[in-house]
Amino acid sequence: MIVAKIGGSEGVDMDAVAADTARLVAGGHRLVLVHGGSDATNRLSVALGHPPRFIASPSGHTSRRTDARTLEIFQMACRGVVNQGLVSRLVRLGVAAVGLSGVDARLWEGTRKSAIRGVEDGRVVVIRDDFTGTVERVNTGLLRTLLDAGFTPVISPPGISTEGEAINVDADRAAAATAAALGAEALLLLSNVPGLLRRWPDEGTLMRRIGRGEMAGAEEAAQGRMKKKVQGAALALGGGVGRVVIGDARRGEPLRAALAGEGTVFQ
Amino acid sequence: MIVAKIGGSEGVDMDAVAADTARLVAGGHRLVLVHGGSDATNRLSVALGHPPRFIASPSGHTSRRTDARTLEIFQMACRGVVNQGLVSRLVRLGVAAVGLSGVDARLWEGTRKSAIRGVEDGRVVVIRDDFTGTVERVNTGLLRTLLDAGFTPVISPPGISTEGEAINVDADRAAAATAAALGAEALLLLSNVPGLLRRWPDEGTLMRRIGRGEMAGAEEAAQGRMKKKVQGAALALGGGVGRVVIGDARRGEPLRAALAGEGTVFQ
Repeated sequence: MIVAKIGGSEGVDMDAVAADTARLVAGGHRLVLVHGGSDATNRLSVALGHPPRFIASPSGHTSRRTDARTLEIFQMACRGVVNQGLVSRLVRLGVAAVGLSGVDARLWEGTRKSAIRGVEDGRVVVIRDDFTGTVERVNTGLLRTLLDAGFTPVISPPGISTEGEAINVDADRAAAATAAALGAEALLLLSNVPGLLRRWPDEGTLMRRIGRGEMAGAEEAAQGRMKKKVQGAALALGGGVGRVVIGDARRGEPLRAALAGEGTVFQ
Repeated sequence: MIVAKIGGSEGVDMDAVAADTARLVAGGHRLVLVHGGSDATNRLSVALGHPPRFIASPSGHTSRRTDARTLEIFQMACRGVVNQGLVSRLVRLGVAAVGLSGVDARLWEGTRKSAIRGVEDGRVVVIRDDFTGTVERVNTGLLRTLLDAGFTPVISPPGISTEGEAINVDADRAAAATAAALGAEALLLLSNVPGLLRRWPDEGTLMRRIGRGEMAGAEEAAQGRMKKKVQGAALALGGGVGRVVIGDARRGEPLRAALAGEGTVFQ
């Protein structure tokens, strides 16, 4: 069982991801794909005249400001654009792919943040109408049902709050929680980078192997969104996943390359 | 086994649909919901500056002009708005709902029309870049897998062509084909009308019972989009579905009312 999270940033080769997935599924692997929708949400938000905004927390962490309208746009981008696109590619290659969101049968359940602290013009403000949360529980029944019957799930945000609201959740973390809940042997976090770099953006400083005792140093080296991937790796390893690979999705055979150890391997 | 197609027009009470579905599922019924996305697509098309256009065929039939950009918008509206909305409502009520499109595992397969004849300014023109088609085959494996495990599928357009392209398909007809393929005992076609009216829009002329030998007369009485529903009813009955009810979704308990015979019953 392999869980692979595919980033949506520029350079990611979705055709190569689909082709490689098809090869792995044909070879008998049980595969779950996860993706986000950040870039597609940005584009659609601009097109709809509701430009993306981001909140910087007092500790320096940045997240999307997800008001009710942004949540709608986020769902259109995730479900209608990214998920449909990936599922269509897979189906054309003969994979019995099934697109899901974290809302379906409460697949990705978590808590909506009741208040978010952000910094605006140097002052700390509290935002209460935001639809953001964290996946805390993965209800794997639906995934197991589909996998056992030979289908390949492709999961998209949003998740769902305990109260039943759709919530914007981080897909890297959700993928890690999914891999842990399924007892996956590997979690692949693929995007438009070769792996974790000791001195970003110098690709010559790729960190190849990181042991369980070296997670703190890895998190320190990680910049920006890479921090979430390293945190996801820690979450997955702590949850019993055999190994996590942060790898490159700009190349051919991106899943098999990561499985072969190309990128940054956490073990 | 019941298949219910829910229209998206003004007046349709989605909360009542969800609540009634939850009651039926809790009572042990196997239920498949189907919906379209016509109204949501119109709104999103306008918001994105690509206003909806329609093609009138030489025989007077009207269909949406679905160029590549409209197909993208159609998928955002169907998957990201209507399907997410209905699934979220159901999940909040405790139903293990799973949103699907006709692309997933080739659920709704059909042929893309290679050329569409339309009338423009009195002249017949041929359009070749349209993504429209008709569902000809329902691959029920995914639905049976989900139903057997206690999940409630909620199916949205688009469908998929034999070549693997997403295609705009009529959801009434797709629901009829789904009911036939599943051997459903009933197909409910619910929208913002009380049923088939002999003289539209006079609700006092509701046609209550239509036998299998009376379909030609019924089709003649049907106006506009109601024609598709009557054709869908004929398709479903011909495919072995026990009965079809065209009923009202503007009221409370809309599914149970239709099952109790309120509306127009084809049998």
